[in-house]
Amino acid sequence: MNILVTNDDGVTAPGLLALALAMQKLGTVKILAPDRNWSGGGHVKTIDRPLRVKEVKLTDNITAFASDGAPSDCVALALLGFFDKKFDLVVSGINPMPNLGHDVTYSGTVTAAMEAVIWDTPGMAVSLGSVENGLLVSDYEPAAQWALRIAQQIDWHNFPMGILLNVNIPLLAEEQIKGVRVTRQGLRLYRDRLDRRVDPRGRPYYWIGGDAPTGIPEDGTDIGALVEGYVSVTPLQLDLTAYPAMSALKNWSLASKN
Amino acid sequence: MNILVTNDDGVTAPGLLALALAMQKLGTVKILAPDRNWSGGGHVKTIDRPLRVKEVKLTDNITAFASDGAPSDCVALALLGFFDKKFDLVVSGINPMPNLGHDVTYSGTVTAAMEAVIWDTPGMAVSLGSVENGLLVSDYEPAAQWALRIAQQIDWHNFPMGILLNVNIPLLAEEQIKGVRVTRQGLRLYRDRLDRRVDPRGRPYYWIGGDAPTGIPEDGTDIGALVEGYVSVTPLQLDLTAYPAMSALKNWSLASKN
Repeated sequence: MNILVTNDDGVTAPGLLALALAMQKLGTVKILAPDRNWSGGGHVKTIDRPLRVKEVKLTDNITAFASDGAPSDCVALALLGFFDKKFDLVVSGINPMPNLGHDVTYSGTVTAAMEAVIWDTPGMAVSLGSVENGLLVSDYEPAAQWALRIAQQIDWHNFPMGILLNVNIPLLAEEQIKGVRVTRQGLRLYRDRLDRRVDPRGRPYYWIGGDAPTGIPEDGTDIGALVEGYVSVTPLQLDLTAYPAMSALKNWSLASKN
Repeated sequence: MNILVTNDDGVTAPGLLALALAMQKLGTVKILAPDRNWSGGGHVKTIDRPLRVKEVKLTDNITAFASDGAPSDCVALALLGFFDKKFDLVVSGINPMPNLGHDVTYSGTVTAAMEAVIWDTPGMAVSLGSVENGLLVSDYEPAAQWALRIAQQIDWHNFPMGILLNVNIPLLAEEQIKGVRVTRQGLRLYRDRLDRRVDPRGRPYYWIGGDAPTGIPEDGTDIGALVEGYVSVTPLQLDLTAYPAMSALKNWSLASKN
């Protein structure tokens, strides 16, 4: 298998290296990742400027490529031919914070995997953490092994088109992790506030900030699984149609011209 | 009603002014939009830097605010209290190109409406164009009237939580527009290629580019409606779970720990 590894924290992030090393057990790995942090950067397509790519040595044996585009741009570059090879799988991460519930459209880690799906390639996003993001991650190796174990159990060549996997691994000691659950997307509760401050020249500026997001730990959801100590695997699609709302809208008088 | 109007083309774009003027017939309008073009910028949450906001006079009677954040940041600023008022509706646009099919996670216009939904406020994205983006938009007034007509027919105070509307208006003479259709998200066909060039100093750079995207004009979809001359209204949700794929995944051996 040919595997592209990318992330949203930048090419030198330790989670990327741990993921790339683990994925080498599954196939031939190429790395193309942003040259800086793009967390919360969303699903970007950079079309108003060209992108640069430079080679970066991560270890004696691992060479990566870094671009000045977003994570999704890195995936597009690779899948459109930067390496002159076809990829069977794109894996993104390991993000040092979980990507749960409504995080998925903001997340550079997840939108990198979305971009893979746009180009008919399976994608898997891998994130690590606790629901409330409280702890700092120092060791990505156990999470990388979970990512490898999950990737090894999937028949990627027969994987359904248009689907990506959003994998979240609880930040727990290995013996406390109970297993893997296939989940649906849960409900994130953001707790941002607008924090107005005044600069030394007397002009206002605004932080979007506040407490870390929490979430509803409902059974069957990504958030619920993480809280209970399970690795969550959520299949995501790019069809956002709210099908139940369609009939309600059709009952209104929208269809009349005037 | 208190209505926030924003866009992804920047505060001085003509589509924004036309939309704001039309929405004044429905309620009290405030404008907070990016100070530059963010097309294709995705669903951004800017947390690593503070945001500035400045006042901009659009006409003798219309004052807007411009921020150096993304469209979704502008929505967060407003809904978290920049204007010290609550909003009943966020309307984003009018984008001079349609946002169809898989465009929705890239689109600054649509992700602004997504951000409204994150903060429990109904959102509506309004875009104008043809499926293949061929034509230049010069007059936003007819599209603004369509946006107003649709917004007037919806009971926003009882609108389902978690839903945004993605409205696309065909770029046709008014008498050729056949009406409104409630649609599902269709399939976009992107035709990007990697265009490698060499700069005057001999170093390579890469454009992600190619022909404009096209799409499958299937009956019942946003793309199909636009091709047939209908305004399309697609309800979107932020739950991206691929429910049919969940059972397939559960049948695999993912749940075992080793």
